[in-house]
Amino acid sequence: MDEAAGYTGVALELLKRAGAKPGDRIRITRSDGRVFEGILMPRYALSAKPIIVVKLDNGYNVGLRVDEKTVVEVVKTRETILKEAAAGAPAAIPLLEETPPEERRPRITILGTGGTIASKVEYETGAVRPAFSAEEILEAVPEVGFIADISARVVMNILSENMRPRLWEKIVDEVAKAIEEGADGVIVAHGTDTMAYTASALAFAFRKLPVPIAFVGAQRSSDRPSSDAAFNLIAATLVAAKAPFAEVVVVMHGETGDTYALAHRATRVRKMHTSRRDAFQTINGRPLAKIYPFERRIELIDEPLRSRGAEELEVANGFEEKVALVKYYPGMEPEIIDFLVDRGYRGIVLEGTGLGHVGEWLVESIRRAVEAGVTVVMTSQTLFGRVNMNVYTTGRKLLQAGVIPAEDMLPEVAFVKLSWILARTSDPGEARRLFAMNLAGEITSRHTVDLYPRWPH
Amino acid sequence: MDEAAGYTGVALELLKRAGAKPGDRIRITRSDGRVFEGILMPRYALSAKPIIVVKLDNGYNVGLRVDEKTVVEVVKTRETILKEAAAGAPAAIPLLEETPPEERRPRITILGTGGTIASKVEYETGAVRPAFSAEEILEAVPEVGFIADISARVVMNILSENMRPRLWEKIVDEVAKAIEEGADGVIVAHGTDTMAYTASALAFAFRKLPVPIAFVGAQRSSDRPSSDAAFNLIAATLVAAKAPFAEVVVVMHGETGDTYALAHRATRVRKMHTSRRDAFQTINGRPLAKIYPFERRIELIDEPLRSRGAEELEVANGFEEKVALVKYYPGMEPEIIDFLVDRGYRGIVLEGTGLGHVGEWLVESIRRAVEAGVTVVMTSQTLFGRVNMNVYTTGRKLLQAGVIPAEDMLPEVAFVKLSWILARTSDPGEARRLFAMNLAGEITSRHTVDLYPRWPH
Repeated sequence: MDEAAGYTGVALELLKRAGAKPGDRIRITRSDGRVFEGILMPRYALSAKPIIVVKLDNGYNVGLRVDEKTVVEVVKTRETILKEAAAGAPAAIPLLEETPPEERRPRITILGTGGTIASKVEYETGAVRPAFSAEEILEAVPEVGFIADISARVVMNILSENMRPRLWEKIVDEVAKAIEEGADGVIVAHGTDTMAYTASALAFAFRKLPVPIAFVGAQRSSDRPSSDAAFNLIAATLVAAKAPFAEVVVVMHGETGDTYALAHRATRVRKMHTSRRDAFQTINGRPLAKIYPFERRIELIDEPLRSRGAEELEVANGFEEKVALVKYYPGMEPEIIDFLVDRGYRGIVLEGTGLGHVGEWLVESIRRAVEAGVTVVMTSQTLFGRVNMNVYTTGRKLLQAGVIPAEDMLPEVAFVKLSWILARTSDPGEARRLFAMNLAGEITSRHTVDLYPRWPH
Repeated sequence: MDEAAGYTGVALELLKRAGAKPGDRIRITRSDGRVFEGILMPRYALSAKPIIVVKLDNGYNVGLRVDEKTVVEVVKTRETILKEAAAGAPAAIPLLEETPPEERRPRITILGTGGTIASKVEYETGAVRPAFSAEEILEAVPEVGFIADISARVVMNILSENMRPRLWEKIVDEVAKAIEEGADGVIVAHGTDTMAYTASALAFAFRKLPVPIAFVGAQRSSDRPSSDAAFNLIAATLVAAKAPFAEVVVVMHGETGDTYALAHRATRVRKMHTSRRDAFQTINGRPLAKIYPFERRIELIDEPLRSRGAEELEVANGFEEKVALVKYYPGMEPEIIDFLVDRGYRGIVLEGTGLGHVGEWLVESIRRAVEAGVTVVMTSQTLFGRVNMNVYTTGRKLLQAGVIPAEDMLPEVAFVKLSWILARTSDPGEARRLFAMNLAGEITSRHTVDLYPRWPH
């Protein structure tokens, strides 16, 4: 092997003996009898473990532990694969080139918070548990190392359903630290369940931002052949390293195949499917960009709100935990509102019906909540569209009771925004004023007719 | 005028004088100076008011009050319009033929419950208030009278955000009565805000059903030129009169134009937009049928669960009001679960994250709720996909605590189903058994990949 490509020790010996170069298709027969075939990848890892990294046909890289008895053979050279591909043969050609040395390589910080993006199977129970380490990520996805210089650290290790406002604050601090230390972009690896909530929390907390912050996760864990972890992480690295915008985005698969990822604006994105790779979708808007990881291409779809490098960093951290999101349902009793007021909640986000309604029997409780200083906000459980509380009698009564309409904000985003606002002010008038402002792209003044999905029928 | 077409008195005189026939394009110049132009429609109304009905170019029919000083002129005859249309000129040709007399005309009952479908502007405040009467409906939408023999009655008159389980029961009773009286189909005119909830309530209550029940509403009130009331009502009438299935469906606009309506299965439909005409969409499935009102055509998309006339009527009415729908958000406190248990709630539907999760700090409260006899069910706020609580540790803990996974049920449908089940049994084991059963198409065992919308990007 001409190039060390990051390999050392027994792994390097085996590859030299076989004459294998990165990009060649190799077969590895291990002493335990298991056989693996795939494209030899360079190794950008921090450990000196005896591991050879190959990209399997499903597109996922595995680090295979080898020893002296392992047999490595070249099945097809990179040159042959490229020749066949040029002649039209289907082939997944992995990204092998580094950024040319004359360019300054972007510096990216990856912050691990837990979640499926780097989870492992818990063998006792068969369930999947998170096990994030920066080293494991670089081992599994060496392409990340071709795009940028990576530093990585674990800031917490929790399943994202256990995320909460107090932890959003820690993530804001860690991201700010990485930017202050000179990162050209920050990646937050996060469980998908509540990723959209945390991402929008950062969108409100970073009042000014010089670089992109890309949230990334995986819908299938990286030990599964169908894992989307590697693809998404490469796409997120491209965004962090090269995107022309300086916004908080969620970068996830754009469709079920490995064609492109989407960078969704944090205040417009929602997890819309329990399990699909393309679960994350932009609601009431368009994604900010399409990312083609294998072509290293970023295609802007929407107008960025902030450009890379245009601003200094400005952070306003802190979230109020006494805010509730309450979804209305037929027959919902006012005692639920009363209880929240009694328990000292400072904000309530209602997820009402249609244009922003709830049963009229709730109006009195809501009025009392507002009089007690609670900020009450109205969103719609339809998700799409805009609340308009001037059309029907119920809406007008709610406005008179002091409810603040949340325009076309997602209920979840209104919840995060109110939590952020109530940590800034204890004056309900000021909270109302801030809530009406478009702070991070969460309000869009006009929707075009084509922002609605095409439903299957 | 050769045919009376339902007209009497001064209206008939004016039309005769002008030589106008139904289908002609006429111009009406009223004594108040206002001029209207449109297609003359026959009049199928119960009142003898001096009114001429014309279909305006926006497709909406108006009943125009006329007097002796009104001038009626024929702008273009029906024959000319049809000739021009045959030559390719764009023309909205209204439905004018009655069902041939040799066929038995279907008998349809329209039940009014309130809502925009027949609302009027409240002129003092500018807000829209419901004002449903069967007579007004027939006056505004005479096409309904061509399809079937209509009887109509107002069973309540409320804005649908004020709907609740006790009122679902009244609607079930009234629909059952109409079917027992021989209706070939029943239409329930309902506000759109909570229409999907009520429709699914009926889907559970009608255990056996010989005829279709079509819920219909309007997103824009019928005094507005863009109203969808007439179009939707004609489509619902076609479904009630002619559909080959005997299911509870929601019939609403299929796209923004007046091309087709969709009949959505009640247990699969959701209002997905605050204001669009095509706000109602089927989630995790396909609509049951496409309805082309102007061609009187019903095109099945999905397999019906029950065919028209295959079963006798069987009703199990009754809904438990002590059921809550609780949407999870990051940091949600267990005291909210504890409060519901303390207040005697018998069922809680959780709208969790991802595959069916909530913060682990809620597990103990949920376990106590189950031990206290409360039935706790898990759905997902992603709406699309299926909960699967065996994949991650949190899900497994929740299953051990006694939470029942709701498969691919919509949160709103799981709420209605649990309300219906808890009115049938007080045994938690029996409630669990019933909840796991597919009672009305609310559980689909397998999703094809194409059931996900195409999102705009």
